[in-house]
Amino acid sequence: MSKVTIRHVAAAAGVAVKTVSRVMNGEPNVTQDLQDRVNKAVDALGYVPSMAARRMGGSRSYLLVALNDRENTINNWRSGRGNDWIDQMLHGAMLTCEAHGYRMLFELVEAGSPDLDRKVVAILSALQPDGIILTPPHSQNLALVEMLTRRNVPVVRMGVAGEGVGFGVFMDDRAAAAEATRHLLQLGHRRIGFIAGSPRFEASRQRLDGYRDALTEAGVTIDEDLIAPGDFTFESGVAAAGTLLARDDRPTAILASNDEMALATLHVASRLRIRVPDLSLVSFDDTPGVRLSVPGLTSIRQPISEMAAKAAALLIGVSRTGEGAPSDHLLPFALEVRGSTAPLT
Amino acid sequence: MSKVTIRHVAAAAGVAVKTVSRVMNGEPNVTQDLQDRVNKAVDALGYVPSMAARRMGGSRSYLLVALNDRENTINNWRSGRGNDWIDQMLHGAMLTCEAHGYRMLFELVEAGSPDLDRKVVAILSALQPDGIILTPPHSQNLALVEMLTRRNVPVVRMGVAGEGVGFGVFMDDRAAAAEATRHLLQLGHRRIGFIAGSPRFEASRQRLDGYRDALTEAGVTIDEDLIAPGDFTFESGVAAAGTLLARDDRPTAILASNDEMALATLHVASRLRIRVPDLSLVSFDDTPGVRLSVPGLTSIRQPISEMAAKAAALLIGVSRTGEGAPSDHLLPFALEVRGSTAPLT
Repeated sequence: MSKVTIRHVAAAAGVAVKTVSRVMNGEPNVTQDLQDRVNKAVDALGYVPSMAARRMGGSRSYLLVALNDRENTINNWRSGRGNDWIDQMLHGAMLTCEAHGYRMLFELVEAGSPDLDRKVVAILSALQPDGIILTPPHSQNLALVEMLTRRNVPVVRMGVAGEGVGFGVFMDDRAAAAEATRHLLQLGHRRIGFIAGSPRFEASRQRLDGYRDALTEAGVTIDEDLIAPGDFTFESGVAAAGTLLARDDRPTAILASNDEMALATLHVASRLRIRVPDLSLVSFDDTPGVRLSVPGLTSIRQPISEMAAKAAALLIGVSRTGEGAPSDHLLPFALEVRGSTAPLT
Repeated sequence: MSKVTIRHVAAAAGVAVKTVSRVMNGEPNVTQDLQDRVNKAVDALGYVPSMAARRMGGSRSYLLVALNDRENTINNWRSGRGNDWIDQMLHGAMLTCEAHGYRMLFELVEAGSPDLDRKVVAILSALQPDGIILTPPHSQNLALVEMLTRRNVPVVRMGVAGEGVGFGVFMDDRAAAAEATRHLLQLGHRRIGFIAGSPRFEASRQRLDGYRDALTEAGVTIDEDLIAPGDFTFESGVAAAGTLLARDDRPTAILASNDEMALATLHVASRLRIRVPDLSLVSFDDTPGVRLSVPGLTSIRQPISEMAAKAAALLIGVSRTGEGAPSDHLLPFALEVRGSTAPLT
């Protein structure tokens, strides 16, 4: 039997080849009637369009690729911490891709590797994606953004503000940390500890800046001893909370730069028989664990799935139209108040 | 400029076309010297092998596709529960694929859809994967397994035991629930509540069977009133724990069929001022939330990443050799004992 081609399908359905292509590619604005006729012909003939065949219609691969941090992702897998960030990224990006007949996959790339460019070029070569989503810390790497731009690969920087190359989709980490700190100030807290994130991530610096902003704004002198280093891991949170809570004049509230370190603080407090919210505790990320913990943690919700959805939509737009001027998109965060914060008594 | 092809690269590197192809595809057993020569030629010529070009060397796509449950995955995303199962699956499968020059992506398919076959065939058509990993509940769907087998698509049933079609990679849910129950019996508990999982999943039935096995083995009469229905959601756990703990002769221990429902039980107990482990609590899944909760929950660890790694390895093996007799692979679970279980006082 000779191979069934798109032409056979078009003939059987009584439509143009282009229409078959649009139906197979899941493009919008095809009437249900045309879709039904094409699908019926596809079934009857057993037509199997390959990705290669789809590409013959144009230069699109209908594939987006996200580059994620190799070190963090694998560490989080191995330690059993899990990668809620990736899960939420997939939520936004996959569903958006699906709605437009695209697919997304993500690749793990080592941020500090001297081989980074070659690795990324190998990914471009193998997959020929219609666009690249850079997640932190790759999205901070302007050289990488420029390399992709030179190769005419549309790129979105996710989670990093306004550099003007490619698209940016981010939230305001500094404002979020300030809002979280203000929440504690409004409850009467003045001695507010801060557990910093990994210096590998720009967001860590911004969160610390926001904490300082809010204290300064409220006329509270910043006590550098209340700022403890961390690296986003549970272990670093245990160490930081241990240091902060061992002080004679220990803080009455703590803002942790991510959930993992906030949950670590909850453990340390429990061990020291300090009840939360007798110690008020605010977290950053709003991953499932802090919503289900006892008490649930007051937390900054990052719009990760919304950022990923926006990133995918921007790239699909460029892929469709061949156009798209660099633009930046700020998405809103939210402070979710739960049982871990209470007025200073 | 004319397009650079694999032949140009082979000529520049002084190697066979097949060698270039093996290096580009990340196949093992290529000497470092050959890799270096090929990579240097690739860089010098700016050669970009497409996925389509890779396929020209043979019928392989170097792509595996996992089919996941659409309903659960999207519900977990929307509710913010997260999909630890998918995260762990990606851990095992992606790293295994990467080590062999493969890639994996996953697709969300509605298990009960009358359109299921068409959807799956569309995925096969678009992506032409070298193999399919079916996750629960798809892996229970023998008609689907047989459809794929008829189309000569190698398939792994993940998480479902021994049906003899395709490969099976699973753990013994019944034995795991029995071991968890035995742990509670050994601590002196006799009134042990059970919160069941969603009837959509075969594993739910097996976990209930294991609970019954252990009680029967210990000569404890099964009290059907201590078995509460659930569907794996937090809300169903709140309802089930509420029912069990409202009884005058309430259970002294509870085994929940997943972590979400166990964390719900922790919340209900806290509300009723019942301290855990005064109520002993055992969970199933060992997701990050139960390890970080206060107290940490005693939990059955499922070897999800190990199952996914094995699934990918089996499919890559078939793809490489063109051979592979149906076989079943049982992977070990583990009972992780933490602070949520204690001797009956």
